[in-house]
Amino acid sequence: MVSLNEVMHDQQGVTAVFSDGTVSRFHGAWLRDNDRGQSARHADNDQRLFDITELPDDLSIEGAVVTDDHLDVAFAADGHVARFPVSWLFDNRYDREHETVLPDLWGAHLKTSLPVFDFSRVLEDDRTRMAWLQAVRDQGFGILENVPCEEGMVCRAAEIFGYVRETNYGRLFEVRSEENPVNLAYTGLGLNVHTDNPYRDPVPGLQLLHCLISNPDGGDTLLVDGFHVAETLRRENPAAFGLLCENWVPFRYRGDSSDLQARGPIIQLNDRGRIIAVRYNNRSAAPFDLPAEKMEAYYDAYRLFAKMLHRPEFELTFKLTDGQLMAFDNQRVLHGRKGFGGGKRHLQGCYADKDSLLSALRVLEAQS
Amino acid sequence: MVSLNEVMHDQQGVTAVFSDGTVSRFHGAWLRDNDRGQSARHADNDQRLFDITELPDDLSIEGAVVTDDHLDVAFAADGHVARFPVSWLFDNRYDREHETVLPDLWGAHLKTSLPVFDFSRVLEDDRTRMAWLQAVRDQGFGILENVPCEEGMVCRAAEIFGYVRETNYGRLFEVRSEENPVNLAYTGLGLNVHTDNPYRDPVPGLQLLHCLISNPDGGDTLLVDGFHVAETLRRENPAAFGLLCENWVPFRYRGDSSDLQARGPIIQLNDRGRIIAVRYNNRSAAPFDLPAEKMEAYYDAYRLFAKMLHRPEFELTFKLTDGQLMAFDNQRVLHGRKGFGGGKRHLQGCYADKDSLLSALRVLEAQS
Repeated sequence: MVSLNEVMHDQQGVTAVFSDGTVSRFHGAWLRDNDRGQSARHADNDQRLFDITELPDDLSIEGAVVTDDHLDVAFAADGHVARFPVSWLFDNRYDREHETVLPDLWGAHLKTSLPVFDFSRVLEDDRTRMAWLQAVRDQGFGILENVPCEEGMVCRAAEIFGYVRETNYGRLFEVRSEENPVNLAYTGLGLNVHTDNPYRDPVPGLQLLHCLISNPDGGDTLLVDGFHVAETLRRENPAAFGLLCENWVPFRYRGDSSDLQARGPIIQLNDRGRIIAVRYNNRSAAPFDLPAEKMEAYYDAYRLFAKMLHRPEFELTFKLTDGQLMAFDNQRVLHGRKGFGGGKRHLQGCYADKDSLLSALRVLEAQS
Repeated sequence: MVSLNEVMHDQQGVTAVFSDGTVSRFHGAWLRDNDRGQSARHADNDQRLFDITELPDDLSIEGAVVTDDHLDVAFAADGHVARFPVSWLFDNRYDREHETVLPDLWGAHLKTSLPVFDFSRVLEDDRTRMAWLQAVRDQGFGILENVPCEEGMVCRAAEIFGYVRETNYGRLFEVRSEENPVNLAYTGLGLNVHTDNPYRDPVPGLQLLHCLISNPDGGDTLLVDGFHVAETLRRENPAAFGLLCENWVPFRYRGDSSDLQARGPIIQLNDRGRIIAVRYNNRSAAPFDLPAEKMEAYYDAYRLFAKMLHRPEFELTFKLTDGQLMAFDNQRVLHGRKGFGGGKRHLQGCYADKDSLLSALRVLEAQS
């Protein structure tokens, strides 16, 4: 348990020396805004009770005192004392490098160790459920087996951790050959790896696919770790990587009383340069509308990324069989299928969002 | 109807002179990727039938011929001819400034001309429904009146254009005073203007609030056009604006078996510098974790933006009365309320996404 060895303050902030030797600086405005005292946070829901505009303009510090396991900071303008548990202060110190937990990048070799979990155990056992959700978070996908081959089970699986995202395709959609298909997914054609619905904003963060009838003659599943490919592009060709991050391109889907349009980058970074999303869908990419002077270089980068997606070392192929259900991160894992012949093949799919999955996982991890 | 006066080509691309004098350049890769011919797009769903990786590496152009109302472009590597309706080519020319249709920015003065529509007419009449959806798109909110004061009508209203986004608060949530409230919204406290659920990823793009019982003693609604305030900040203090765009900050909500966490910028831009989202919620802002050297300047910018949100000229106040229902853009319009006394006040709310609203609106506009 970390404690505070020494605290120094000036008007602008507090410098804390923790018992493990860590030295951290905390600014006056940050301290006052994050006051953990009773008057600052609601007892029932721990939400902040004040707005930044309700604080004095002058947040200079008058004193800082450590008592037992907390730090009291007094402010000059109004004499208010803000209170912080020392362990909370240590956990929330910002004067440091933030660890970047990288996801588990994978490729074709994962075929011998697919993340597969038993459906009944996921329902009944917290640790197995946690392991399935961790696979989706860390590897981008997790497979359930022994799922009853009944209609609608795909929604039941989404409700284990969250909520179905209903769309113009319904609460769930049927993936099988149709006459006059509104979408190429509903044909027997092979589909290159892609992310679903980049024409939607927000894009569905998760997709679930439940195999009710597999086809003996093809229809194998292809998965590619988009983060792995994008990180490889960043290393091999930083200029191309930059073009795909900085320029947004349009996607569109038209049909069955819908006209869905959205724009976004093929590779999306957060403010720390981490890859947080990949968008790639040859079927629904709308005509790119970048400035003419960028178009040639952009297409070179786009084609390079597309070719990398097809490299054998990145391409994981396996057959999803009857009773298997796959949940995957639609902003990371690209999926596709091989074409299939005349026989039947029937999958049911639905969309969901990642936030509830991650929330459920945090609660499970905190309990374990 | 635009036609083509002249077409010149070299190996790299086609230069087209349209009948209105517009001169546009189209690159070989773009032309081939956007081939509108029968072999390139599926007859039923108009989706692209090939992947960029299936095209030859060399997309140099061999010929370009105008016949009637289309342009045929022949490629050297494989002799393939791609076909383009001239009007399509004109509409999709990228060698130009893209018009930026700015939203209708508003402030306190809108009180005398609130966008209010009759619920029955919105249900029955395409033009009234279109006008309501246009208000949400262009002004960020639209009010329905004469909505039956029955439970669940808020979901019925969302289903006019799209789908309810279910969350840990349910398909719909009750906004009224509760004992042991899991959220400050469920108290009688006043709430500063905020956007909802910045701790969710994706953030709900739309919120609907249906007033079943208004309180005679307070509870007035406050709305602020976040895009207007952010554009004003961009003009008045570009450096502060830049800090709020470039740095992402964390938000968190903990309670009722949830631990929702997300990061994002307070002001979000697209690749063309247009404001596309605002996040602001004093209750659920988590401790900012920016590098120490940025923290002081960031807090100055944050406080400046927060103060601007409270400027009287931006603050629209009105009383939502029984039978009124407000749909608003939760990534643009901040909402709040004045505190209310001991009497009853009961609203029901739900979340939805903007993509289906915009899709429904495009379909209506194309028909009208």
